[in-house]
Amino acid sequence: MPEFSPGLEGVVAAETAVSEVDGANGRLIYRGGYLIEDLVPVASYEEIVHLLLHGELPDERQLATLRGTMGADRKLRESARKTLLAMDAATDPMDVLRTVISAQGAARSLTKPTLEEAVALTAVFPTVVAAAHRRRIGKEIVEPRTDLGHAANLLWMMEGEAPAPEKVHWVDTYLVLLADHGLNASTFTARVVASTGSDMTSCVVGAIAALKGPSHGGATLAAHNMLNKIGSAENAEKWLTEAHARHERFSGFGHRVYRTYDPRAKILREMAKTASPELHRTAAATEEHALRILHEAHPERPNATNVDYWASVVLTGAGIPKELFTCLFATSRVVGWTAHVLESLADLRIIRPASKWIGPEPGRKPRQLAQR
Amino acid sequence: MPEFSPGLEGVVAAETAVSEVDGANGRLIYRGGYLIEDLVPVASYEEIVHLLLHGELPDERQLATLRGTMGADRKLRESARKTLLAMDAATDPMDVLRTVISAQGAARSLTKPTLEEAVALTAVFPTVVAAAHRRRIGKEIVEPRTDLGHAANLLWMMEGEAPAPEKVHWVDTYLVLLADHGLNASTFTARVVASTGSDMTSCVVGAIAALKGPSHGGATLAAHNMLNKIGSAENAEKWLTEAHARHERFSGFGHRVYRTYDPRAKILREMAKTASPELHRTAAATEEHALRILHEAHPERPNATNVDYWASVVLTGAGIPKELFTCLFATSRVVGWTAHVLESLADLRIIRPASKWIGPEPGRKPRQLAQR
Repeated sequence: MPEFSPGLEGVVAAETAVSEVDGANGRLIYRGGYLIEDLVPVASYEEIVHLLLHGELPDERQLATLRGTMGADRKLRESARKTLLAMDAATDPMDVLRTVISAQGAARSLTKPTLEEAVALTAVFPTVVAAAHRRRIGKEIVEPRTDLGHAANLLWMMEGEAPAPEKVHWVDTYLVLLADHGLNASTFTARVVASTGSDMTSCVVGAIAALKGPSHGGATLAAHNMLNKIGSAENAEKWLTEAHARHERFSGFGHRVYRTYDPRAKILREMAKTASPELHRTAAATEEHALRILHEAHPERPNATNVDYWASVVLTGAGIPKELFTCLFATSRVVGWTAHVLESLADLRIIRPASKWIGPEPGRKPRQLAQR
Repeated sequence: MPEFSPGLEGVVAAETAVSEVDGANGRLIYRGGYLIEDLVPVASYEEIVHLLLHGELPDERQLATLRGTMGADRKLRESARKTLLAMDAATDPMDVLRTVISAQGAARSLTKPTLEEAVALTAVFPTVVAAAHRRRIGKEIVEPRTDLGHAANLLWMMEGEAPAPEKVHWVDTYLVLLADHGLNASTFTARVVASTGSDMTSCVVGAIAALKGPSHGGATLAAHNMLNKIGSAENAEKWLTEAHARHERFSGFGHRVYRTYDPRAKILREMAKTASPELHRTAAATEEHALRILHEAHPERPNATNVDYWASVVLTGAGIPKELFTCLFATSRVVGWTAHVLESLADLRIIRPASKWIGPEPGRKPRQLAQR
């Protein structure tokens, strides 16, 4: 029996051409071999959707077709809409998303995952997220528009008014950056679900369930909360020193894969200067002190800032309430999940690892139990 | 970089004391060290729930307490009930289960998985499954009763009349047998979701999503469909020989872990003689010929009958329609899922394997794309 691999660290569980995290060199590569920093200046989220699902960046005509399809796919089915309305308005938006997407994709019989479903699910996420938000703040749900891009329509449905172009740009860039990231826990979940021959919606619902955790998608909120407690650049050093003395973990630092600065964090840090100047000051000072304190305590460990840290600053600048941070993450990553599921269909083999028994010696006899 | 492990076969992804599949010796061990064949004659499903969640078989008083709690937990919350009613009556019952359980467990904020939630989720599964069935066949939903055991109440809600004791016995035994089984794909999914710090309902919803696949929980239905096509003991040899010549897989044979006869299949095979005598004849003849044909073709492979094969015969005898087979599997396994989640909390570490890049050389430059 091979040894236990806690967290499956370093175990290769899939071959993929969807994305690659080159942690040693701080590179994120998307399908086709593009570096993330080369894509960001030229591609909108829809172009990334085309890239990850079709394998190529779209030409103008392909992009127009995809935008048309995604616009048409923004509407909720009647049963999903009723499900949404049945939920308590104060429900965690991630629980709303998990439930309503499950309803949206419910079918009469099992079907193999398709590209059409991948596009449709990606298109409809903002509708659910925005509706959950509107109900949460006690406002009317805003219907999706077909004439807006993915990011603009999301903000439109959230705010009920035409969004400022710079906000659209920040959200769109965030969506581009988070769209895929190797075999992270939610993508891996989607692939495990797919490996049993299950359907596309089941894969995506499983992935939402995994993303919700604070060690994964929930990390953006944790970073936000820490910055909120710190409050100002001037307070950063004192707060961090005290927190470190209390053995508290700093949110937003460290990653399983990156051994150097996360390229996504670098782009978001730069963007945060204009998106959220005041919070950027606090975050930059906090980062400087946090990295220093962590390095002094553990000089052997790589402790670069992760994407969640700077994402929390940019999303705040774009007016996204913190309760929606994990939902925004899901709204971006859904395309990666579905791309991985489609890729895995080519060689479907059930993912069923082994376990190591740590219970008592087998063969213990039960006494006769209470009568049935 | 270590080698790719397709399906994570043989990779130890967890240490567990919940259950152990000793495939080489054909043994299934439940928490505490009990062999499944020692538990079946003395324990009802509720006793197994106590064993897997609390670590010990209950005494009479503990069992009464658990039965009381489970009885009280059978009701759906209003939002979950509305979600159920919002769904098309012809929806795949597994999709109903995935959606309604997600609604049942939706909360205002993230909480750590608890034992209480494990019991509550286990208790409520039959309510959802039976309601999906009643709506499917166009009949009124039957409310749960608190005076019946788990299996009896399930049959009551499905049929709307007091179930025959032998049917209760068959279903109860099935539920005992399927309650846990090492690190199968759905249980592993639950542990991956838990590893991110997500909540109990998310873990269970992810597990439902994985169980749905025909290579996992869906296998019982596939075995049923094959036996249905064969139709009689007399037709078995001819049908199998022809199917084998067409390179069709035989449903119900082979398992990743067992290298000998699955102990659960043995118990169900014996029970099938009384539960479903006619179908037992067909299934026994089919098994004999299938094992012979498979052995002749691949003498090096272990090709023992799996649990799904004989489960399909027993469930049919108990009057469970085939559309509900996977839901029955979920109704049993949910306690195993939750027991694994609770166990994993003791040493939570995100499950994030590595992947191997098989795309083109990184660094390709995108041309300037369509204007945004």
